[in-house]
Amino acid sequence: MASLKDVGERALIDRVIKSIRKSPYLGPGDDAACIDIKGTKLVISTDVVTFERHMAKGMTMEQFGWLSAAVSFSDIASMGSRPVGILAAVSLLPETDENVLYDIMNGIDQCAEFCGTDVLGGDTKAGYGSVCTTALGVCEHRVLTRSGARPGDLVAITGALGSASAGWYAALNGIHNKDAFSAVALPVPRVKEGMFLAENEIATSCMDISDGFSTTASALCGSSGVGMNIIFESLPMGKGVAAVSKKLGMSSADLMLNGGGEYELMFTFRRENLEKLHSSDIDLAVVGVVTDKGLQLTKDGKTSSLENKGYEHFTED
Amino acid sequence: MASLKDVGERALIDRVIKSIRKSPYLGPGDDAACIDIKGTKLVISTDVVTFERHMAKGMTMEQFGWLSAAVSFSDIASMGSRPVGILAAVSLLPETDENVLYDIMNGIDQCAEFCGTDVLGGDTKAGYGSVCTTALGVCEHRVLTRSGARPGDLVAITGALGSASAGWYAALNGIHNKDAFSAVALPVPRVKEGMFLAENEIATSCMDISDGFSTTASALCGSSGVGMNIIFESLPMGKGVAAVSKKLGMSSADLMLNGGGEYELMFTFRRENLEKLHSSDIDLAVVGVVTDKGLQLTKDGKTSSLENKGYEHFTED
Repeated sequence: MASLKDVGERALIDRVIKSIRKSPYLGPGDDAACIDIKGTKLVISTDVVTFERHMAKGMTMEQFGWLSAAVSFSDIASMGSRPVGILAAVSLLPETDENVLYDIMNGIDQCAEFCGTDVLGGDTKAGYGSVCTTALGVCEHRVLTRSGARPGDLVAITGALGSASAGWYAALNGIHNKDAFSAVALPVPRVKEGMFLAENEIATSCMDISDGFSTTASALCGSSGVGMNIIFESLPMGKGVAAVSKKLGMSSADLMLNGGGEYELMFTFRRENLEKLHSSDIDLAVVGVVTDKGLQLTKDGKTSSLENKGYEHFTED
Repeated sequence: MASLKDVGERALIDRVIKSIRKSPYLGPGDDAACIDIKGTKLVISTDVVTFERHMAKGMTMEQFGWLSAAVSFSDIASMGSRPVGILAAVSLLPETDENVLYDIMNGIDQCAEFCGTDVLGGDTKAGYGSVCTTALGVCEHRVLTRSGARPGDLVAITGALGSASAGWYAALNGIHNKDAFSAVALPVPRVKEGMFLAENEIATSCMDISDGFSTTASALCGSSGVGMNIIFESLPMGKGVAAVSKKLGMSSADLMLNGGGEYELMFTFRRENLEKLHSSDIDLAVVGVVTDKGLQLTKDGKTSSLENKGYEHFTED
């Protein structure tokens, strides 16, 4: 008998996909599912977050609500679609103060408003402190998936790396760092950016960096059947990363490459679109190139394998 | 400070709805949310079930998976829409045997196949044994809601009452009753029936009986601003109810009126559609009439208030 912990989330998902009937739609395996309704693509993503695993020390319930919504909207964003609503199923212990529920729902509502949409419905049940959100989006053009990267494309990310992870460890160790804490408590789903990349037919592939940069790069390479060479020096370091890593004696490179909870987008694009991208108001950095095979990192002029060390649910504490 | 237990699920939902921004769509408050996509109504419902509260003693993980899907498809059915997919977010302890996950997903997949659709995606996380399903449906005509009942309409239900509740208590007390156990472990979402009622413009209102007959009747009256007079003798008793209630010394009337987990539909319709309904192959019973106000039960020729005593999450053990 193997436990979930032995197998790990990614292998489990692969095995689940193989064990159920295949959907005729773009379904399990990408950031979100997609079905066609009269030529409009409907994009749907569901995610659970729990107090135990996802609530950084010191986070308010409103922030936890925002986070739970941002996680699902980030998947909608990574498919290049426009959010049209969110549903939330909240599980709490019966002894919980009723205001906890209202605060969580208000956080979800605020994130929905930021994403230009509404809370459509939900459910509440007795449980151990978790929120399952399901976000919906629509797309009138080609949806962005993980599988379109081609050798010669450039690799880019929105925003910067490591802040959310730095924020998590800072809070855990009683270190006050406003920027890092904000990154972990109020992540910004890159909805505007995803829509821009899809509507202007710029991105050849896209995925959100929720489980860390190395895991995302590895998954994107796997889905597209390509490799990447990432230039370490081109990766933007997030706010608070330097300060927190110094205080805690942690490697800032590790936080940037392997820290989870970023909710930035990684995408690939053809070189000829570089100018169009730079003339947009999207906060982005070009961080590497797509190659035939092998995920590699060039640092200090030396190239070596970039190992997939991002967050793995079930196998980590 | 009031706890969730003090307030109870229904009042909590009312307060949540008041505390967040109002959605422009048919949203929180009905069995499912509904948004318009180019004239097609998209119906969405999300629900959590937990091992602790919803797994009858002796249920297999496949049955639990089926149940978790049926709960959401039942909401899609009660809106009269055609299922187009389901997503599932499964939370399990890391030490859990991996086969538990595959069995749950297979149960969900089987229920999706029964409903003519597919598993579109999902999520897995470390947690305490719960499944959050989100079912999607489409509707080309008017969706069925809780608010269209008018005085003079007749009240009907699909199937029969009390089996699921009888099955729950039978299993809990080590009593073997195949019919009752099947009702609680493998509830049948009334998708075909809901679609028939909507497509033929028969039902004036509709709702699923997931929290028990008295609660459903009370909610439907509240949403429609009407009353009902229910004739007790016209309520069909579910299989196994008589045997189980006798063995356990429970009131069969109580199981039928207040037992949860039925997943039958309650609907109202105009008298002139009675013949059309009876000539269909839908398994239904006419159980009362819609009145101006007051929810009443006539039993043995005597009429009294039908109290809302159905299942209330948080306040019950």
